[in-house]
Amino acid sequence: MVFKVIVFGCGAATPTISHHPSSQVINLHDKLFMVDCGEGTQLQCRKFGFGFQKITGVFISHLHGDHYLGLIGLMSSMHLLGRKQKLLVFGPPPLEELIRINLELSSTHLDYEVVFTPTSDSGLQLLHEDHTLEVYSFPLKHRIFCTGFLFKEKQRPLKVPKDCISSNDLMPTQILALKRGENITLDSGAILTSQDVCVKPPDPRMYAYCSDTIYDPQIVQYWSGVDLLYHESTFLNSEVERAKQTFHSTAEQAAMIAKAANARHLLLGHFSSRYRDEEPFLEQAGAIFENVSLAFEGKIIEIPYKQ
Amino acid sequence: MVFKVIVFGCGAATPTISHHPSSQVINLHDKLFMVDCGEGTQLQCRKFGFGFQKITGVFISHLHGDHYLGLIGLMSSMHLLGRKQKLLVFGPPPLEELIRINLELSSTHLDYEVVFTPTSDSGLQLLHEDHTLEVYSFPLKHRIFCTGFLFKEKQRPLKVPKDCISSNDLMPTQILALKRGENITLDSGAILTSQDVCVKPPDPRMYAYCSDTIYDPQIVQYWSGVDLLYHESTFLNSEVERAKQTFHSTAEQAAMIAKAANARHLLLGHFSSRYRDEEPFLEQAGAIFENVSLAFEGKIIEIPYKQ
Repeated sequence: MVFKVIVFGCGAATPTISHHPSSQVINLHDKLFMVDCGEGTQLQCRKFGFGFQKITGVFISHLHGDHYLGLIGLMSSMHLLGRKQKLLVFGPPPLEELIRINLELSSTHLDYEVVFTPTSDSGLQLLHEDHTLEVYSFPLKHRIFCTGFLFKEKQRPLKVPKDCISSNDLMPTQILALKRGENITLDSGAILTSQDVCVKPPDPRMYAYCSDTIYDPQIVQYWSGVDLLYHESTFLNSEVERAKQTFHSTAEQAAMIAKAANARHLLLGHFSSRYRDEEPFLEQAGAIFENVSLAFEGKIIEIPYKQ
Repeated sequence: MVFKVIVFGCGAATPTISHHPSSQVINLHDKLFMVDCGEGTQLQCRKFGFGFQKITGVFISHLHGDHYLGLIGLMSSMHLLGRKQKLLVFGPPPLEELIRINLELSSTHLDYEVVFTPTSDSGLQLLHEDHTLEVYSFPLKHRIFCTGFLFKEKQRPLKVPKDCISSNDLMPTQILALKRGENITLDSGAILTSQDVCVKPPDPRMYAYCSDTIYDPQIVQYWSGVDLLYHESTFLNSEVERAKQTFHSTAEQAAMIAKAANARHLLLGHFSSRYRDEEPFLEQAGAIFENVSLAFEGKIIEIPYKQ
């Protein structure tokens, strides 16, 4: 089952020639979710050939312009290009009113339904789920109300192999019992144990998005063992004081979070435009945590199952 | 004296790979004014190496997203990049509140002053002037409140040539009298006529921006004899009914306006994304009005003095 992240923007604050403001799409079991939507995101989608009409929901972390200013334009284009399918929007409570005002001022009546769910800053909050996945928000410490997002596969049930079913002529109730982890007794008197016959599905995977945030080891509690962690790294070590003052993190601090969370892979982003060369981000984070990558516009990062 | 228009976006409604949403910068005597600011305009500025901090004022025609959604991001970037100089903003009355709300939600306190002037739909309205130029708004008929903008040089005074001043040993009061068009009598009894000695400055130039608008010959009254007219041409002739329904214009209608205004040059823009080939815009307008050009991102169009 597919689980991947596509980066459309990973620059901090003001857009530059090198980086667009924050936006990603998460493809989880072919359901598409956007996280943050900085100015120009719809253009980035077009540039990378991504059809934004397929998006089920948009998650906005906070109301700094580089994380939400592309949302109204995206929603408007979805409408102009014929969207009928409902759009889920999740974000800080005032975002709902902001959307309403913008649509009202332009006399736009969307041809599709928008279902808005406000995020909250009280712990892990389940925002969305279906039979295979869950999306949560969790609080981040930034200058204004801000949350991260956790994308999580649900644990798939045990599987009884087809040849086991046919060779033992298993009834549906017996199959279900084995899947529940129970043992069953066949007509012959033989016992089939769930542990022996069932195939264990792979461990469910997790992706955590943390931007923007000060260095805050507390957040690890929400997704310990995460498979992929996107953590902001606005600054390098030399600006560690500035990072603290502005409620941002350094590459090294992002790596410390990844290490504390026992993450499998760390993706760095939200780079300040002051840096021309981003290799030092990799070096400074890499000294703490080995499996680290730099985000860039157009990057696709797959989240494989654990071996 | 310089008078030119730089096009940053000339597409209609939704941005595409071919066209960005509406935005232009007018350089009039080295004062820079932006007209409309669709999503991604600040990125276009960077792409074309244009330093947006030098902008004196931004004029927003109407509150459809493709004409204003880049404004908050631009203002925010101006702040982040250290602007201290006052910014003039002109636009529909609700724009002021929209700016306020966005800044408040992001807890942004700009380090520069924003002076907002609401536009009105009652005739020609002087929005801004200095000793060499004037900027006016005028009403356009669109689906929502919308104005065009007229950039106008002031008539420069008559000039008394230096050699005339020195050879006749003219006093300042005499020079001023000649500049006012009066004749003067020298001590010798000889008469100098203003008409004979003064050099007439070139006729002042005008640029009119009309987007978005239905075909409306009434607008010509505001800038008859305009040097450069930017008129929206969202559609071709085949969509003339659709143009009417959506309060837009065709290329042919734009040319009819240019002809009725006795314009010197017509610049077409605001092209619908349905057209892959824009040559027919040139052909259909060109059949009515000879001196016509197509806008494109990065185009710079100079407005020369009349010969």
